[in-house]
Amino acid sequence: MNRDEALSPLFTDLYELTMMFAYRENHLAAKATFSLFIRGSEGLNRGFLVAAGLEDALSGLENMRFSQTDMDYLRSLNLFPEDFIRSLSGFRFTGDVWAMPEGTICFADEPLMEVTAPIAESQIVETFLINTLGFQTNIATKALRCMHAAKGRPIVDFSFRRTQGLDAGMQVARNAYISGFNGTSNVLAGKKYGIPVSGTMAHSFVLAVGSNVEAFRAYARSFPDNCIFLIDTHDVIEGAHSAVEVALAMAKEGHLLKGVRIDSGEMVETSKAVRRILNDAGLDRVQIIATSGFDEFEIEKALSGGAAIDAFGVGTKLGVSADAPYLDMVYKLARYDDRDVRKTSPGKITLAGEKQVFRIMDRTGKYASDTLGTRSEMIDGTEPLLIKVMENGRRILTSPTLQEIRKKIQDGFSNLDGGYKSLDHPDKYPIRLSPRLSEIQ
Amino acid sequence: MNRDEALSPLFTDLYELTMMFAYRENHLAAKATFSLFIRGSEGLNRGFLVAAGLEDALSGLENMRFSQTDMDYLRSLNLFPEDFIRSLSGFRFTGDVWAMPEGTICFADEPLMEVTAPIAESQIVETFLINTLGFQTNIATKALRCMHAAKGRPIVDFSFRRTQGLDAGMQVARNAYISGFNGTSNVLAGKKYGIPVSGTMAHSFVLAVGSNVEAFRAYARSFPDNCIFLIDTHDVIEGAHSAVEVALAMAKEGHLLKGVRIDSGEMVETSKAVRRILNDAGLDRVQIIATSGFDEFEIEKALSGGAAIDAFGVGTKLGVSADAPYLDMVYKLARYDDRDVRKTSPGKITLAGEKQVFRIMDRTGKYASDTLGTRSEMIDGTEPLLIKVMENGRRILTSPTLQEIRKKIQDGFSNLDGGYKSLDHPDKYPIRLSPRLSEIQ
Repeated sequence: MNRDEALSPLFTDLYELTMMFAYRENHLAAKATFSLFIRGSEGLNRGFLVAAGLEDALSGLENMRFSQTDMDYLRSLNLFPEDFIRSLSGFRFTGDVWAMPEGTICFADEPLMEVTAPIAESQIVETFLINTLGFQTNIATKALRCMHAAKGRPIVDFSFRRTQGLDAGMQVARNAYISGFNGTSNVLAGKKYGIPVSGTMAHSFVLAVGSNVEAFRAYARSFPDNCIFLIDTHDVIEGAHSAVEVALAMAKEGHLLKGVRIDSGEMVETSKAVRRILNDAGLDRVQIIATSGFDEFEIEKALSGGAAIDAFGVGTKLGVSADAPYLDMVYKLARYDDRDVRKTSPGKITLAGEKQVFRIMDRTGKYASDTLGTRSEMIDGTEPLLIKVMENGRRILTSPTLQEIRKKIQDGFSNLDGGYKSLDHPDKYPIRLSPRLSEIQ
Repeated sequence: MNRDEALSPLFTDLYELTMMFAYRENHLAAKATFSLFIRGSEGLNRGFLVAAGLEDALSGLENMRFSQTDMDYLRSLNLFPEDFIRSLSGFRFTGDVWAMPEGTICFADEPLMEVTAPIAESQIVETFLINTLGFQTNIATKALRCMHAAKGRPIVDFSFRRTQGLDAGMQVARNAYISGFNGTSNVLAGKKYGIPVSGTMAHSFVLAVGSNVEAFRAYARSFPDNCIFLIDTHDVIEGAHSAVEVALAMAKEGHLLKGVRIDSGEMVETSKAVRRILNDAGLDRVQIIATSGFDEFEIEKALSGGAAIDAFGVGTKLGVSADAPYLDMVYKLARYDDRDVRKTSPGKITLAGEKQVFRIMDRTGKYASDTLGTRSEMIDGTEPLLIKVMENGRRILTSPTLQEIRKKIQDGFSNLDGGYKSLDHPDKYPIRLSPRLSEIQ
């Protein structure tokens, strides 16, 4: 979403609009604070989270406008009286927003954002905010887990064809990049975000040209200094020998083959065999890129098996966050008209009041624990994670660049102990309630 | 996507563009046919699929154009020479497309689409086509499984807040609707597609107003003939009694409460208890709507446990297809320059040649088996499922309405035996290769 592009408030569920109308009819117009967080649960296999999506969220809040066709559509539903529909033409989001900056390492059950505005306004943005922050936080988190598993090896996002729509593809490329990916195959994301793009050849190229050797030669003629050969269209060992043949010819003309790509089959023994073939031909500098079905679990498995892989392409399983395709992100009323409130449905209890997250570091700067407190309290020697980012509907901070967010994630992650980073059964990071917050529950 | 909106061909992976350039440099310009299908695998827990997404796919193919900013961006990569970039300004998709009409009940390993065009054109659309058809087919399929589990009870799509982006939310609402859902909470999808929208109130409404009874009264004042009360903000049994109190008052003024909604906790005993409370008060016509964590598996579980649920709201798990967040949809070269080709990578073997899917019915019209054959053959007494839908880059058929697609799905599904509809371990629908197709493999 571009910063100056209007966002339709119909990016919502109908009940937000029926409630908006009922609030108005019943003269409920006071300020309400909603708290947005990810519910922790037994099944949530995530030792940490990476807050993401704030840029799009704030841009959307600033640019929410009902268009004429939006109002015409609502009129056609015969659900709302004309004066209510007319009142929407002047709708603006005029609230205040506190949020964790993008790239903050955080945890389940911590508020990532709190929104305070007249209740009609803070209510109607719920669907948009959860949609925008939930998926991006999920992808940034999954991507950082992949980086962790790859132990310094570069990864490129190859997910675009299997993301759940165009919008998802763009968000995946962006959030994988802030979490440390080297780039993406997604050209539209490259254009929009300035993310490095990369790509080589598909099996269809080899099939169309007719043989491995001919295909590699043809490709090398077009991109002599930027070649990665796909070697598994047929037998991968034969493919590796073909790659060697063409690479040696390229070397005579002063061109270095960058790498070979393996996109199918068992990876550990295959990559080792390919490495030996390359090394035996003196092609030690040619990299092996592996790209079939990887995510953090498969990367860890391949590397712990001793696979000779120099770089990964990660696609589908990152693009849809296959092992956790959604996070249980919710947006709950915490305060209305100066009254702290919470719901008590079984298994879905929420915390009342306006909150702050206080991070406690140990003497070396490592994250030791977080305390959830009330927004007005101060806890000595801690860092408050929620920052006021919007006032009266306008952003009050400059947006960070992707590079700055990337750096923030890298720094934060280095302050997190290894136990919280485990891909399975991570340690549970300690989160406490301050005495003051406990009192109002 | 609107039919007349230009689609950027940068909705692609970079390797499609590098291959396009390499094809050009190496004078490979012949026609290529790609076959798009979903790979069957052990793990694919789907006895049937619903082909969906064709409307968006064809609209995109018709409207693919490189904009000036697209070309400027490609220029900035310093990867392609200027004459190649200039040649893109005239790019159009000029190919032919055969496809299963939207709503066709189909199966893994069957081609859903075949695209024939000069290889540069048929190559570059790969990412866009898989993205567009894969997710929509996945959602239409999952939604039909939900309808099957609900045994005639209405279902509404409540997924918008947890879909993977805006685009996904729109596609979910649309494809759930064609598979038989009653409507959606997604207002933007209601506006775009004319799908019925529905919605009631959230927990925040009850909390803001202050008590169940006050909240229900306030809501009934605003929507006297269109009320569903959310009864589980606090204890659900107390909530049910509050709903009865307000419903009886409404009845005195001639208004009927439509329903009560339960959004948390155990559903079987809770719904039965709520039913008794309503019936004891003579409110037999008030419906119970359940909306917490449902998908086809949870619906089946609740109903087989005897839950007193009249209608379902299905959200997150449909919206991301939680048990199968992606389908292994691929787009493989099957023919180039009048030569049938296929790849033979282990576990990823594809079928050569231009194909047709022939459906064989039994005497009662039930689907008996499918035969994959070559496109040019005729098999007596069968129905060919792939239709020519685009010629020289232009659609040659009128787009069906959502109602027509909905009807097609309903009819097709009634012709499918129960064993293929099982939610778990479905029977495997018989698919054979014709002798002629076998010959060219």
